[in-house]
Order: sequence, then C-alpha cells, then structure tokens
Amino acid sequence: MLVVLTGIPGTGKTTVANKALGELSDEGIKYELVTYGDIMFDIGSNLGLVKDRDDMRKLKSDEQKKIQRLAGVKIGQIAEEKDILLDTHCTISTPKGFLPGFPEWVLRELSPKIFVLVEADPEEIDLRRSSDKTRKRDKDNIGGIRTHQELNRSIAMSYSIFSGCTVKIILNPQGRLEQAVAELKEVLS
Amino acid sequence: MLVVLTGIPGTGKTTVANKALGELSDEGIKYELVTYGDIMFDIGSNLGLVKDRDDMRKLKSDEQKKIQRLAGVKIGQIAEEKDILLDTHCTISTPKGFLPGFPEWVLRELSPKIFVLVEADPEEIDLRRSSDKTRKRDKDNIGGIRTHQELNRSIAMSYSIFSGCTVKIILNPQGRLEQAVAELKEVLS
Amino acid sequence: MLVVLTGIPGTGKTTVANKALGELSDEGIKYELVTYGDIMFDIGSNLGLVKDRDDMRKLKSDEQKKIQRLAGVKIGQIAEEKDILLDTHCTISTPKGFLPGFPEWVLRELSPKIFVLVEADPEEIDLRRSSDKTRKRDKDNIGGIRTHQELNRSIAMSYSIFSGCTVKIILNPQGRLEQAVAELKEVLS
Repeated sequence: MLVVLTGIPGTGKTTVANKALGELSDEGIKYELVTYGDIMFDIGSNLGLVKDRDDMRKLKSDEQKKIQRLAGVKIGQIAEEKDILLDTHCTISTPKGFLPGFPEWVLRELSPKIFVLVEADPEEIDLRRSSDKTRKRDKDNIGGIRTHQELNRSIAMSYSIFSGCTVKIILNPQGRLEQAVAELKEVLS
Repeated sequence: MLVVLTGIPGTGKTTVANKALGELSDEGIKYELVTYGDIMFDIGSNLGLVKDRDDMRKLKSDEQKKIQRLAGVKIGQIAEEKDILLDTHCTISTPKGFLPGFPEWVLRELSPKIFVLVEADPEEIDLRRSSDKTRKRDKDNIGGIRTHQELNRSIAMSYSIFSGCTVKIILNPQGRLEQAVAELKEVLS
Repeated sequence: MLVVLTGIPGTGKTTVANKALGELSDEGIKYELVTYGDIMFDIGSNLGLVKDRDDMRKLKSDEQKKIQRLAGVKIGQIAEEKDILLDTHCTISTPKGFLPGFPEWVLRELSPKIFVLVEADPEEIDLRRSSDKTRKRDKDNIGGIRTHQELNRSIAMSYSIFSGCTVKIILNPQGRLEQAVAELKEVLS
C-alpha cells in the first residue's frame, strides 16, 4: 500500500502528515513516512552530485531525472514490505519549467493507490513562506503559487490514468488543521 | 465508432443525449446509447457485489476497478458491431478521492474517437441536484462542483493523448438546451 | 535537443521565437526553427489532400492524425542532426473538439526535452486576432480563448509524464516582449 502525499512548500503538508500518522499509530494503524527528497538526497550525495539540500534544486534536469528514477526504485522496494506514506512533490519548479514528480518510468515503478494533494490559499502560502526562516525558498509571487497548485491538480489527474489511483484534494487553510488531519486519516484508514 | 458522453450529475447530459439521438434517428443516423453504469451494475449484480444502484458508490475502489474493467471489455465488444454513444463519468467521486473513469487499461480497450464533456454552471447544477427527488445524491457544495468540472476537463485532455480522440466541451446552462443538442448532433454526424 | 514552442494564435509566439533565436544566434547558439504546420502542409500537399493552408483546418480528423504522425517522424529525423525549436500547437481546435497536438504516438517519436507555452491575456489575444488581416481566423470569443489556454496547460502537464520534459509557461502580454524573449533565451541556453 503506497499513498503519495504532495503539496507545495507552505501548504502545511508535513504538519498534517505527522499529526495524522501520530493519531493513526495510537489507533494501531502503522504507516512509514518516507520523504522522496531524503531518498533523492542520499542517492545524490552518494553519487557525489550534491553537498547540501539546496544543491538539489540547482541540478541539471538530466541529473535530477536520474536521481528521481533511482529513488523510485528504492521506494518501490520499501513499499513491498510495509505501508508507506510518501511525502514528495507533484511537480518540481526548475528554471527550465515544471518537472513532473512522477514521469511514466517512476509512476509505473511505484503505482500508488491514492494520490493526495494538500492545498492552501495562495496568499496564505506566500505569507507562510516569507515568515519561515529555517530554509531558503524561491520568491514565487501569489499568482505563481496559484498556477503551481492548478498545474499540480492537472498532472495528478493524469497520474491517475496510469495507476488507477484516486486523487484526493485536502484543503488546509489557516484554522482548518484538525479537519485536514481527519481527512488524511480517513484516506489512510 | 465510439463517442463518450460525460457530465457530472445535474448537467442535463442524459436529456441532451436523448434529444440529440431522437432527432438523429429521424434523420437516419443511428447510435445506440449505452450507459456504463448500467453495464457495471449488471456485472456487479452478477458477481453478487451490489443489490441496488446506490450500492455502487459504496464499493471498495478495488471492486469498482474490477467491475469497471469488465464493463470496458463488454462495451468494446458491442462497439465492434454498431455506433455507440457511451453515457458515463469522466471521474467518479469516492470517499478516497476522484477515481478516473478511464484508467489506461479501460482507455486502451475502448479507444474512443470523440470525448464529450457536458457542463453547466456550478450554481445551476447545485440547484438542479437539490430539486431532483428521484434519487439520492451527494451534497457537494458549489465549490466542489466547480472543482469536479475542472478536474474532468484536465483528465479528458489526458485521455486524448492515449486515444488521439478530440475533446468537445458542450455548455448546457438553463435555456440553452436546443443549442447543446445541436452541438452534440454535429459531433455525432 | 528538441524544444517545443506552443501558443495559440495571437499570443505572439512566433515573434518571441524569432527574436530569441536571432539574439541567440549572435551569441553563437544555433537552433533551427521548424514549424510543424509547414511540415504537415508539405506532407498534406504531397498526398493531394490540401491546396492551401486554410484547407488544413477542414481536414477530417483521421486525415489530420495521419499527416500529424508522418510529420512527427520527419521532425524526429531532423532532430537527430541538429537542435530544433519546434513551433507548433499544443492542441488544435476542430469542429469535433480539441485534438491533441501530441498524441502518444507523436510524443514517443519526438520525446521533447522542454515544452514551452507562450500565453497572453485572452482579451489581448482577441484584439490581436481581429486586427490581424493577413489570414483568416476563427472568431473565438474571449471565454473560448481562456478555455483553450487552460486546456493547453493541462495537456502540456500530461505530455511531461510521457517524456519527462519540463513545462515552461512564458507570459507575453502587451509591453512584455523583451522579458518573454529573455525567458525563452534562458530556456534554450
């Protein structure tokens, strides 16, 4: 059982995931939270292509694709043994445009059962990003954030054609965390 | 020749279809109207999985997928002998998210020539749904209806990549039935 | 290296392309600008299916698909020898609906590396179209133009799943030509 969890930076995706998995764990439902970026970074480091996390964004698209595919293979292996919630990106914003998080060769490898999109209002995302001082972020404007979320919806629908997965949109605007967590728990139960 | 006709509940899709097929029949153009849900219900009943139509929405996604695939095979057989207008759903709204009406294995089986989306204003759809007392419906709010129609547009475009079909959007707001019927007739002629 | 350049009539796509390629050429970066429509017209003429460019829009969808595929093969051959910027349509508006510019069999043939969408405001596009007297154009209204651009974004995201290409959106509203040109140059560098 592989559930994919996506959401652009600032949607609160990881907070929702951690809270939902904690509550589910208390109820005896175990998922391992695997972060695609961590697996990619491990592989990229081992290949000597990156030194820190921000280097990942600066990779050439060919290098990104190679690491992305190798990470897909590794996650597929993990998913054969346990239920996984895969924290990742629907698309990756690069200087050359949006790169699909799940090109065909990754999609067919992983074959997710449910694809979750966590979304928030573009204005809130912009605000959350600017007040987050813990890592460097792109200065997308609000229009760019809206576009990114819309494109993610589009491509998620396409992903579902390949794997037959459902696409679940979970809204996580300010003050709705409990409901977003409840919705993710329902998806995972 | 297989033309797929989709539209979420409340768009008036079936009304448009019946009127267009009636008028075309008078002009000597014959299409058989096949309802995917009917074929799926027949198969589900035969398999002992459902008793009435509303049970179909409550099926686990694995069961839904199996029935969906078997229905695709059956419709493909019918389409070898006559022209079919296939009344179905672009995506199906389930508790786990939107399920594609045409995952790859159904799409490649059927290979539609034209994919029609009948749409109406979300507010009108909401109104039509609430005043329709003949069957139980989900209480989607207007935003949810808008989202569902937008996602259907997205996934329909993706379907066209696999089959090379055209995607035709027919608007059917209040008071525009004659024109919607004329547009569907043009598509089928 | 194959970069696809799309944009509906009136976005100024070709102007942006010519200016970007001219400046890049001065910097020693050479791309050949190939127009899909030209290749299709050559093939259609040779097959005796069309006499002038406007006939191309009136072809039956089967004929269009055949010519489209043959053009894909030819462009694939050219791309093996040089870097190409392929000027084409993301989708083609026909009486039977939107036809994908890159159905699976063309997409797998060409496998573009970057897919560019040049966009402009629907109102401006409408204005540009009506004041352009050099060729016959469809009288899409502004809503239709907006829809066409949105559907193109959707399908471009789907294309990226097949080829792993990035999707780059370049906005070219009135007065922003220099920036649009700079963005295209960055994509091609």
